[in-house]
Amino acid sequence: MEKVYSMVVEEFGKPLKYKEFDKPVPVGGEVLVKILASGICGSDVHVWKGEDKRSRLPMILGHEGIGYIEEVNPGRVDLFGNELKKGDLIVWDRGVSCKSCYNCIVKRKPYTCSNRWSYGFSKSINDYPYLNGSYSSHILLTPDTGILQIVRAEEINENEDYIPYASACCAGTTTSCVFEQIRVEHSDNVIIQGPGPLGIYAVLFAKEAGAENIIVIGGTQERLDLCLEAGATHIINRNLIQPEERMEKVMEYTEGRGGDIVLELAGTKEAVKEGLQYVATNGTYASAGIAVDVGEIGINWFRDIVRKNATVQGVWVGDIKNTYQAIKMYEKHKELLAKMVTHRIPLKEASKALQMMEKKEVIKAVLIP
Amino acid sequence: MEKVYSMVVEEFGKPLKYKEFDKPVPVGGEVLVKILASGICGSDVHVWKGEDKRSRLPMILGHEGIGYIEEVNPGRVDLFGNELKKGDLIVWDRGVSCKSCYNCIVKRKPYTCSNRWSYGFSKSINDYPYLNGSYSSHILLTPDTGILQIVRAEEINENEDYIPYASACCAGTTTSCVFEQIRVEHSDNVIIQGPGPLGIYAVLFAKEAGAENIIVIGGTQERLDLCLEAGATHIINRNLIQPEERMEKVMEYTEGRGGDIVLELAGTKEAVKEGLQYVATNGTYASAGIAVDVGEIGINWFRDIVRKNATVQGVWVGDIKNTYQAIKMYEKHKELLAKMVTHRIPLKEASKALQMMEKKEVIKAVLIP
Amino acid sequence: MEKVYSMVVEEFGKPLKYKEFDKPVPVGGEVLVKILASGICGSDVHVWKGEDKRSRLPMILGHEGIGYIEEVNPGRVDLFGNELKKGDLIVWDRGVSCKSCYNCIVKRKPYTCSNRWSYGFSKSINDYPYLNGSYSSHILLTPDTGILQIVRAEEINENEDYIPYASACCAGTTTSCVFEQIRVEHSDNVIIQGPGPLGIYAVLFAKEAGAENIIVIGGTQERLDLCLEAGATHIINRNLIQPEERMEKVMEYTEGRGGDIVLELAGTKEAVKEGLQYVATNGTYASAGIAVDVGEIGINWFRDIVRKNATVQGVWVGDIKNTYQAIKMYEKHKELLAKMVTHRIPLKEASKALQMMEKKEVIKAVLIP
Amino acid sequence: MEKVYSMVVEEFGKPLKYKEFDKPVPVGGEVLVKILASGICGSDVHVWKGEDKRSRLPMILGHEGIGYIEEVNPGRVDLFGNELKKGDLIVWDRGVSCKSCYNCIVKRKPYTCSNRWSYGFSKSINDYPYLNGSYSSHILLTPDTGILQIVRAEEINENEDYIPYASACCAGTTTSCVFEQIRVEHSDNVIIQGPGPLGIYAVLFAKEAGAENIIVIGGTQERLDLCLEAGATHIINRNLIQPEERMEKVMEYTEGRGGDIVLELAGTKEAVKEGLQYVATNGTYASAGIAVDVGEIGINWFRDIVRKNATVQGVWVGDIKNTYQAIKMYEKHKELLAKMVTHRIPLKEASKALQMMEKKEVIKAVLIP
Repeated sequence: MEKVYSMVVEEFGKPLKYKEFDKPVPVGGEVLVKILASGICGSDVHVWKGEDKRSRLPMILGHEGIGYIEEVNPGRVDLFGNELKKGDLIVWDRGVSCKSCYNCIVKRKPYTCSNRWSYGFSKSINDYPYLNGSYSSHILLTPDTGILQIVRAEEINENEDYIPYASACCAGTTTSCVFEQIRVEHSDNVIIQGPGPLGIYAVLFAKEAGAENIIVIGGTQERLDLCLEAGATHIINRNLIQPEERMEKVMEYTEGRGGDIVLELAGTKEAVKEGLQYVATNGTYASAGIAVDVGEIGINWFRDIVRKNATVQGVWVGDIKNTYQAIKMYEKHKELLAKMVTHRIPLKEASKALQMMEKKEVIKAVLIP
Repeated sequence: MEKVYSMVVEEFGKPLKYKEFDKPVPVGGEVLVKILASGICGSDVHVWKGEDKRSRLPMILGHEGIGYIEEVNPGRVDLFGNELKKGDLIVWDRGVSCKSCYNCIVKRKPYTCSNRWSYGFSKSINDYPYLNGSYSSHILLTPDTGILQIVRAEEINENEDYIPYASACCAGTTTSCVFEQIRVEHSDNVIIQGPGPLGIYAVLFAKEAGAENIIVIGGTQERLDLCLEAGATHIINRNLIQPEERMEKVMEYTEGRGGDIVLELAGTKEAVKEGLQYVATNGTYASAGIAVDVGEIGINWFRDIVRKNATVQGVWVGDIKNTYQAIKMYEKHKELLAKMVTHRIPLKEASKALQMMEKKEVIKAVLIP
Repeated sequence: MEKVYSMVVEEFGKPLKYKEFDKPVPVGGEVLVKILASGICGSDVHVWKGEDKRSRLPMILGHEGIGYIEEVNPGRVDLFGNELKKGDLIVWDRGVSCKSCYNCIVKRKPYTCSNRWSYGFSKSINDYPYLNGSYSSHILLTPDTGILQIVRAEEINENEDYIPYASACCAGTTTSCVFEQIRVEHSDNVIIQGPGPLGIYAVLFAKEAGAENIIVIGGTQERLDLCLEAGATHIINRNLIQPEERMEKVMEYTEGRGGDIVLELAGTKEAVKEGLQYVATNGTYASAGIAVDVGEIGINWFRDIVRKNATVQGVWVGDIKNTYQAIKMYEKHKELLAKMVTHRIPLKEASKALQMMEKKEVIKAVLIP
Repeated sequence: MEKVYSMVVEEFGKPLKYKEFDKPVPVGGEVLVKILASGICGSDVHVWKGEDKRSRLPMILGHEGIGYIEEVNPGRVDLFGNELKKGDLIVWDRGVSCKSCYNCIVKRKPYTCSNRWSYGFSKSINDYPYLNGSYSSHILLTPDTGILQIVRAEEINENEDYIPYASACCAGTTTSCVFEQIRVEHSDNVIIQGPGPLGIYAVLFAKEAGAENIIVIGGTQERLDLCLEAGATHIINRNLIQPEERMEKVMEYTEGRGGDIVLELAGTKEAVKEGLQYVATNGTYASAGIAVDVGEIGINWFRDIVRKNATVQGVWVGDIKNTYQAIKMYEKHKELLAKMVTHRIPLKEASKALQMMEKKEVIKAVLIP
């Protein structure tokens, strides 16, 4: 029988193990995908180290991937009703919602589904669909997984580099969901904390939401420079500029008002404390960077929220709607966003890649089977 | 020359002084009002004690009042274009916005005006319009003050008790602005922290927003009982029921989901910490009770906001739109809301009344000149 | 083999035929329901007469029903995750959406799903699930049909009349979706055209949205009186009061502004033409009554829409979210809403009932198997 | 005494008359402006011909202008609190709202103010502030007129062409208000009817709202080409392409869905009838082009609005918020938008310019005193 393989977490924090599986045959609406590339997300490091309560071992990491359909039965369609077939280049929803619970139906937010599970997060290799993470040569998508056809089989261009599309599937998706849940008005000033993959997408989304000034605050000059290239009007390197001076600069760039929109895409307690102070009267603070429990953060609730009549929006994930919007964004800015993928690493070296990610030596790394 | 009088704060925290002034003659759109009653707000205690940075001495307290027009020039109209005349019973906007700044015009939220000043808060008796607080026999309203005609002079009913209308001018107004800025969906569960005047109005607004369960948490049984009468479906006395049990009850009453809407109208750090935990996935936490800087509050940002995809809305004040809505609410529930006014105290005993307010011996007290 | 039966449309406009079927056995998430009552909707008359392009013969009418579970497999849950079992009293979504198309996912409005099909509308008895309309002794619900458990089997009260719940499944559901898609502000004036089942629910929803004046315009005094009982503040019988006078009254009741919200639930061209004129500046006109193509309506676009900066919202249907909200409304107003069900007719006399419906001899009639 | 002059409409439809006035001295917050350029709007033709009911003769036309402050008293500030002084280049709100009526305060939409009056529209030269239209050497702005400082006196660049800024004051302003009142989601398809000044701004706003495809339909190739340059993805010349084919193209460009957003900026009955058919399910049709009563338009209400669950938004004007947003847009696209100003005509030839406008021989013409 033909074999496929994955890099499996058998013990938290230990090197991933190469493991072969029988190649599955899709039944009904299932889709077997040959992975072209699997992005490494910051969350993967948390899961790998056992910091995510959802994880059960042994498991396959990887929730942002792109690949070619290897096998699919007739009638399976994508979000736009396009029939899928062998050879199509696709991306898919990293999470699967039940679409029938209170959050899905009454709140109309399937990405907050109470029964949602995620590829590369929630299931062990003993749970259906077994081949359920993208740190693999292949992945098996369930019938209720949202799919987007990126290029039809017959239109695949041998010379095009499709790998960086993977960045849209997680970073781009969550960023898009931030923008879905807030309202940016034309000419609003936007401040972005964290120039990583989410931050870079956020610059683009802010620009396409009509933002006037787009100020990015971060600690890595290389990432900040990429934000500038993406359309940021100002960057502030927090390793070079002290907090009080940062506040002065923010006020200078925003004519003394602060950010109508401030986005926390940095993931630290310090960022939240600092960012809330940048919010203008009537402004919105959207927080999508804090992905694990970091304990309590001391907030001056009166000064930063009540007195300013401010809004705070927590953003957990996003779904295939947002992946669609992120893909559209990617397609407008391919050249720029491809630069985000700074490292391409053989899948078998996944453990090394996770360590590089942990040390922030990369903006975005992808694993190539 | 005819005289009017006010009770004046000459020194913070010290007894108010009776002081006479020449009775002013309104010019242009100014309106001279004979005060019928002036509500005592919790904020008055803060101002009296010098805890509000805006205050300048000597000053007159009082931002929620109701009164009869004593003198007005032709052409002055109310919010609905009704021409005002001597003898009309009116209420007015406690704050005055410039209606031409960024917050007024670009953000369309005049109640957050950068140049807003408030009767009974921001001005000394040396600042125009001098007679600028309602702890007075008369108050002089400026031409740009929003006014609502409650009863035309010719329709005043000698036997009706108009005094409790005053509760709509501050408590009702801020509560209305909470509801303006959030979206309650039909059948949402609403949790209210704080059964004071704002909380009682909040029960009514929640009901008229289609709330399913309305759960009020507070420490004074008398206030909680009034909430029950107003339509709360459940009350929780936090002096009798411990935190863990409170959480259990909230979950029981909301079928395990928590509050789609949780309103902080209590004004304490503990309330914020506790209330955020009651918020359901996709829920909204609106905070209007914290009226002075209480320092930092330790928030589990991940668990309470990001992971739940929750929204937090700070609410500072409200304006004459909200007073209008509160007045309409008052008129539907006169009998109930009149019970909120537990004490009527002669204006000259204002100092005593402030002390009672500080000790929470009253739900709502009003001063009668 | 055990038998079940339906009243089947074999020829458009002709009497329905009694027809027996083998009683189906639910597989997987399917649910077999014993019908308690099936509401007759105005749309049924259109379908019966062949005016709805979706219909294919032979077919079973009936999209608003209530019944007891006759058979269900373990694990099937309702919208709230409650496990369903034999004997439970339930209602269900009249339509089934794919939850994976552009309208379901990108637009977050599953009720506008491109692939939606409806019980009692879209399928013939030769299409799965065959027993697919509620003019039947039993109906077979598909695994992807949204369900609400109304009363658990063990809590069924023999003495309670559960039949009028059926009104929530279509009239209440669409009305709820009207309110989901507009925003009523507290103290808004609401005008309702059409005092039928949707109109009566609309009065209740308007009240629970904080409406100030609720004005209902219609032609049947009995229906108007029921609206008054439900909370309408004014009624206008259009058979007694001429158009110009109607406009005068509307303006009188709304202090000259017109309706902040005007709801077309009447279904005629004349209603649309007239209703748009009642809309206040900045008001919203929601139209849910026109359920079949009635041809062109001459609209004074400038005067009625552009000049008034007005909004028009078309509302097609609703889904199980809205049924949930309508059920909650029903449970608050059982006595009143039960009055809406003016006729209970044996299922075998369905043809007669359709004729009565056509002649508007009933407010709401239900068929009892 | 020093003189200023205007071109005055003394008789509808007749040539404008040159008329001198004493140069006014601003009192209080009034501002005397030396006009740099006055845009000619399509509405001016309607007013000139007596088709606007608001007009009273003799009057000065002109509601979109730009100019230098000639005289101002200390303390007068712009929207951002910048103090204004002699020599500053400014634009102003073409309309003046009362900011204290129901529409201003309760509906939070000052641009729909019941008491709004407009420069160049509503007043005769006998009404304060007399010099109240921009077809003049000077205009006198009232204290309650919103102002935006474009360039401080000391920063005026002799070599820069400031004249095209005028396009932002009417066309840009109304277009911005269209976008304020609808919600464009990222990747929405936008269809624009009418490639005039509003349409060109609309292309830019649509792009900065994240639109995917931007399709412009119009009759003048030159205008369509400018739209293409502004970022339209497709243009359709309705003089070359027949209606059925237009529908086919729209569907082709939108993958069969139609426009999520369709903007009527064309001003004809035919456009409305046609445009509503382009609206996708759940789409929005915003109509801002119909500026005078054109009588009834036959709308297939069921097919075009109800069945599609569509939204229609009428848009009447906009205010200084929108002018601010339009100015910001102008400043990002100066070169492109300057091309819109195809004709610069001496003020004294205003009558000729109006005739050219009527014949649509210009995209945008401005009058130079």
